[in-house]
Amino acid sequence: MENNISKYHFTVEPFSEDYRGNLSWGTLGNLLLRCASLSAGTFGFGYEQVVQRRLAWVLSRLIIDVPAMPRTGEQFEIQTWVKSVYRQFTDRHYAIMRPDGTAYGHAVSTWALINIDTRQPVDLSQMPDDQLWQCIVPEREAPIAPPTRLRLQTPELLAEHKAAYTDLDINGHVNSIRYIELLLDRISKQEHAANPVTRIEMQYAAESGAGHRLQIFADRDSDDARRLYVIKRDDGTLLCRGILHRSNNG
Amino acid sequence: MENNISKYHFTVEPFSEDYRGNLSWGTLGNLLLRCASLSAGTFGFGYEQVVQRRLAWVLSRLIIDVPAMPRTGEQFEIQTWVKSVYRQFTDRHYAIMRPDGTAYGHAVSTWALINIDTRQPVDLSQMPDDQLWQCIVPEREAPIAPPTRLRLQTPELLAEHKAAYTDLDINGHVNSIRYIELLLDRISKQEHAANPVTRIEMQYAAESGAGHRLQIFADRDSDDARRLYVIKRDDGTLLCRGILHRSNNG
Repeated sequence: MENNISKYHFTVEPFSEDYRGNLSWGTLGNLLLRCASLSAGTFGFGYEQVVQRRLAWVLSRLIIDVPAMPRTGEQFEIQTWVKSVYRQFTDRHYAIMRPDGTAYGHAVSTWALINIDTRQPVDLSQMPDDQLWQCIVPEREAPIAPPTRLRLQTPELLAEHKAAYTDLDINGHVNSIRYIELLLDRISKQEHAANPVTRIEMQYAAESGAGHRLQIFADRDSDDARRLYVIKRDDGTLLCRGILHRSNNG
Repeated sequence: MENNISKYHFTVEPFSEDYRGNLSWGTLGNLLLRCASLSAGTFGFGYEQVVQRRLAWVLSRLIIDVPAMPRTGEQFEIQTWVKSVYRQFTDRHYAIMRPDGTAYGHAVSTWALINIDTRQPVDLSQMPDDQLWQCIVPEREAPIAPPTRLRLQTPELLAEHKAAYTDLDINGHVNSIRYIELLLDRISKQEHAANPVTRIEMQYAAESGAGHRLQIFADRDSDDARRLYVIKRDDGTLLCRGILHRSNNG
C-alpha cells in the first residue's frame, strides 16, 4: 500500500498565500492537480502518456476540505492515491499533512478519461497494462463528508467573467481551479475574514475556453455557512456547480 | 560575490504553464517575487524582518525579459542579487538559467521601503546594520534593455475588473503580478500564439485593494510588437503602466 501512495513535500512560500497569510485555495487547488498529474505519471497513466493515445483526463468532481490552512513558512505534505476505479470514473484521494503526522485536511477528486477527438469517455476497464488498476489503495479513504445534495432554488446573476489567456490550462480550457477562484471572489474580504471558507465542493459539467463569457449565479437563499453557485456560459451551457462552506467563527 | 547571489531551483510543474506548455508569466512573476522575498530574508531584510519595524517593501518597477520560456518538465534556476542601493530605491536583478548555464532570460526590479503607517519611503542609507548595503553585487548586471520611454497617446478603455479576494497579496493589496495577468488577458489566445509576449515592463504607481474597480486602458495606436497600457482606479488614480513586447514570429 505505502508504495502506491505518492508523497510531495511543500512549504507555504511567499506569494502563495491569501491576504491573511494562509495558503491560498488557488495555490492548494493547483498543487492537488499537480500531485495528481505527477503521481499518475509515475504509474504510467499521466498526461504525457495518455495524450499519445489521444486521451485526456477530465476532472468531474473535486471536494477540498481544509478547516485550517498552513500558513507562511509552514511545511506540508500532499499524499495522493487512487482510491477506486469504476467503468467510467476513477476516484483519487488526497491528504494534506502536517510534519507531525496530523492532517490539515483532505480532498477527493473524480476523473474520467476521454478521447480527445470524440470527447467520449473511455472504458477504464480497458486501460492497457492495467496500470491504473494495479495501484489502487482501496483500504485508505480520505475521511471527508460526502457531497452536499443541494440545488439552487432562486438563481441570481452575480457577475460575469470573459475567459482569457491566463485562465487557460495546457488543454486550452479554463483551469478547473480558476472556477473556484471566481466563486471565492464573490465573497467580500470582510466576509472571508469573519467566516473563512473551510470546504469547497465542485462538480464540473462542461469545458469553456478563451473568449467565452462565464456567468456566475448564486442562490439568493444561500445562508452564510453554505453558499451555492453555478457557472454557465452565456449560451446557457452549465459549466460547473460549486458550494463554499464557511466556518462559524473568524 | 558568489555568496551574495541567491539561487533557487525549480521545475516547470503541471498546472504552472500556459495553454502552449510554456511556464506562464504569472507563475514566473510570482516566483521572481518569491525569490526576492526569500533572498532578502536570508540577508536579514525580508518581509518578516522589516514588518517588525512597521516597514514594507513596495515594488516600483519590474522588467521581465524572457524570449523563450522553459516548458513543461524542464528545469530552471532563478538567481537573484541586489545590484545597487540608492537613497529611496534599491535595484534587484535576476537571471533565469538553464541547467547548461545559459540564460532563458533576465529581470530587474526596483523597490522602495516604506513606513506602513505613514506610507512614506524610508531613507535606505539609514538601514540598521547595513545589511542591505553589505550584500550588493555591483559588478554583475542583468543584460536587459533599459525601460522603454513611451506614453499613451490615445487611451481607450478596454476592460474593467473589480478587485477581489483572490487578487490580494499578504499586504491586502492587489498582487503586482495580477496586474500583469490583467494586461496579458487583453491579448487574444490567437494573438498570443502568433506573436508570443517576450518582455514585460511594469511601472507601479499606487496600490489598490478589494472592492476597487480597476480600469484597463490601452493605446489605440499600439502596434502589434509593443502594446501600451495603463490601469487606473475608477476614481482616476493611476495604479500602473505596462508595456507588453511581442515577438515577430509565432
